[in-house]
Amino acid sequence: MTDKILSISRRTRATPFTRRVEAAGVKGYTVYNHMLLPTFFESNEADYWSLCRDVQVWDVSCERQIEVTGPDSERLIQLMTPRDISKAVVGQGLYAPLCDETGGMINDPVLIKFAANHWWVSIADSDVRLWARGLALGFKLDVAIREAPIWPLAVQGPKAEILVTRVFGDEAPGIRFFRSKMLEFHGRAMMVMRSGYSKQGGFEIYLNDPELAEPLWDELFAQGKDLQVRPGGPNLIERIESSLLSYGNDMNYNNNPFECGLDAFIDLDAGIEAMSLPALRALKGKHVHQLMGLVFDQVVAIPDCAILDSGQVVGDVRSQVWSPRYGKYLALAMMRRDYLEHNQSVTVDGKIGTIVDLPFDFDAIR
Amino acid sequence: MTDKILSISRRTRATPFTRRVEAAGVKGYTVYNHMLLPTFFESNEADYWSLCRDVQVWDVSCERQIEVTGPDSERLIQLMTPRDISKAVVGQGLYAPLCDETGGMINDPVLIKFAANHWWVSIADSDVRLWARGLALGFKLDVAIREAPIWPLAVQGPKAEILVTRVFGDEAPGIRFFRSKMLEFHGRAMMVMRSGYSKQGGFEIYLNDPELAEPLWDELFAQGKDLQVRPGGPNLIERIESSLLSYGNDMNYNNNPFECGLDAFIDLDAGIEAMSLPALRALKGKHVHQLMGLVFDQVVAIPDCAILDSGQVVGDVRSQVWSPRYGKYLALAMMRRDYLEHNQSVTVDGKIGTIVDLPFDFDAIR
Repeated sequence: MTDKILSISRRTRATPFTRRVEAAGVKGYTVYNHMLLPTFFESNEADYWSLCRDVQVWDVSCERQIEVTGPDSERLIQLMTPRDISKAVVGQGLYAPLCDETGGMINDPVLIKFAANHWWVSIADSDVRLWARGLALGFKLDVAIREAPIWPLAVQGPKAEILVTRVFGDEAPGIRFFRSKMLEFHGRAMMVMRSGYSKQGGFEIYLNDPELAEPLWDELFAQGKDLQVRPGGPNLIERIESSLLSYGNDMNYNNNPFECGLDAFIDLDAGIEAMSLPALRALKGKHVHQLMGLVFDQVVAIPDCAILDSGQVVGDVRSQVWSPRYGKYLALAMMRRDYLEHNQSVTVDGKIGTIVDLPFDFDAIR
Repeated sequence: MTDKILSISRRTRATPFTRRVEAAGVKGYTVYNHMLLPTFFESNEADYWSLCRDVQVWDVSCERQIEVTGPDSERLIQLMTPRDISKAVVGQGLYAPLCDETGGMINDPVLIKFAANHWWVSIADSDVRLWARGLALGFKLDVAIREAPIWPLAVQGPKAEILVTRVFGDEAPGIRFFRSKMLEFHGRAMMVMRSGYSKQGGFEIYLNDPELAEPLWDELFAQGKDLQVRPGGPNLIERIESSLLSYGNDMNYNNNPFECGLDAFIDLDAGIEAMSLPALRALKGKHVHQLMGLVFDQVVAIPDCAILDSGQVVGDVRSQVWSPRYGKYLALAMMRRDYLEHNQSVTVDGKIGTIVDLPFDFDAIR
């Protein structure tokens, strides 16, 4: 495919940062939760090196916060996820697949607890607001659910801590992974969490005043000049090298968390009330597919992304990218488990690819 | 804004027609229901004239069909819409806003009834599947809900009837507006409805076999050569001239159907069980905003789309386009009703715009 223009309208919502993103020379967007998500500024590869070497600022406003408040909040959230949320710590991020009554994944958000009756569901790309509200109405739960007026801005890369400390002060370095603090910018307290959709380290700033979007953006760029700060976005190369899953790409509602290797986030025996538990108990160990890595020495063309062996479909490619760092072509593929029992490689387009466990282990691959 | 590239991935789903759409030279897409929707091939304006003069084929696969089956199907659908569905005729399209318990619009689909226990909800851009499934689980309704394997292809324009008749036979012209027939292509029966997101006339073919996507596309182009058939998509100019609303652009869940002028689709006194009825009864006549047309003689710049009068926000622009046919700049704007009582025009950017009722009446405007 050659490059296509994104037709932008009010439906593909802009963010409080969009004017700055445009001024910074964004070249590509995707649409995520009905909102513009910048994907690259120079090129995927140039942005990749900048992210791994220095520090980037990402407009990830599209990580919408579905806010659940009211006495039944915890019950509703536990109903939606098979991860035990009873031990959640206030201000802590908790990665938690949301699964329906068949075990299918509705989303894979990060949950943030403020109090038993006050949670954020920091969502991937599906209308969790509708799912949660439908359930709450039907089950007559005493909750209020809304998309909160919050626009996350990520600061990612090895120099992110230096930059965030310059802007938010000396408390930033003390924030542990997936923990947060309320820190001030221009007199306004906002949540700063050590998190983000890369493995290069960094923070997400949960902007809660759109008037401060441009001052915050400008301050990060002013303070980061000597750090070679650049605008960026979730980077396809980096996220696949780092085996970060993407809902809608690597899995969707037709997949259960076992297929995606998310067993660690499923608490089958915690006595929780998740609606997916009966189905997940029955599926455990019996799921048909498993998300695996594929490694090729060169770019391959995979028609319709179907992986064939002797004419039989044995898997399908979900995401793929050329890794300039490793000189390998990497893919995430949903593979038949019965095939994996007997095969450690696949032949596609005449080229042999190695099937590997996730996350990718580049020491082993080289 | 300058043109931006759409970063395409598996999450922005391709359709069975995408290869043909690409080969036909698509230049722009938007993302709609997590799926690629072609927006233009030559330019918005060139495509507009072709649509109004000849006939176009549109890949509108993104009009996903949420299929509801089972004994409680009709109850669930009536719960979701304040339009009385009891008189729906089998095979008939029924435009029906979906509203939540506050009266807010969740979507504005076309409902299609096959039997009391078998419906399609042909949706605009929001995850109605999640909303319907959440409600069904909570209310313990005996239904199955899925996104059906259906990919609509629209044939639009004044010559659409000639083309569809050539491909689907002499029964096509007998189909009335929003009615359908099961017609055969390559021995396969599929629903053909007289409908589509333009006012130029035409049909939508509900493709139910992806293997037939390319043969159908090719046949329409082969048979339409002398009709100057062109690829196209929902056209911004035509749809605004025709006052066709777009969910997510002109209204969303913060709007109720009265604000959007959809009173004719709300049956407050039919004794139906729609969850939105109490709220809509209370809102009737008391809604604060009204969607109106704005007409300017020249292009205007509306910062942040806010319409100001003496520094006060009196409305906001939802959609806007230059109409080459009328030589006017047209906008759909949500205006304060109290402002409308005293004003028939607005001044923006130093230019006076006339506030008009929808649909636009171009005889009156000129």
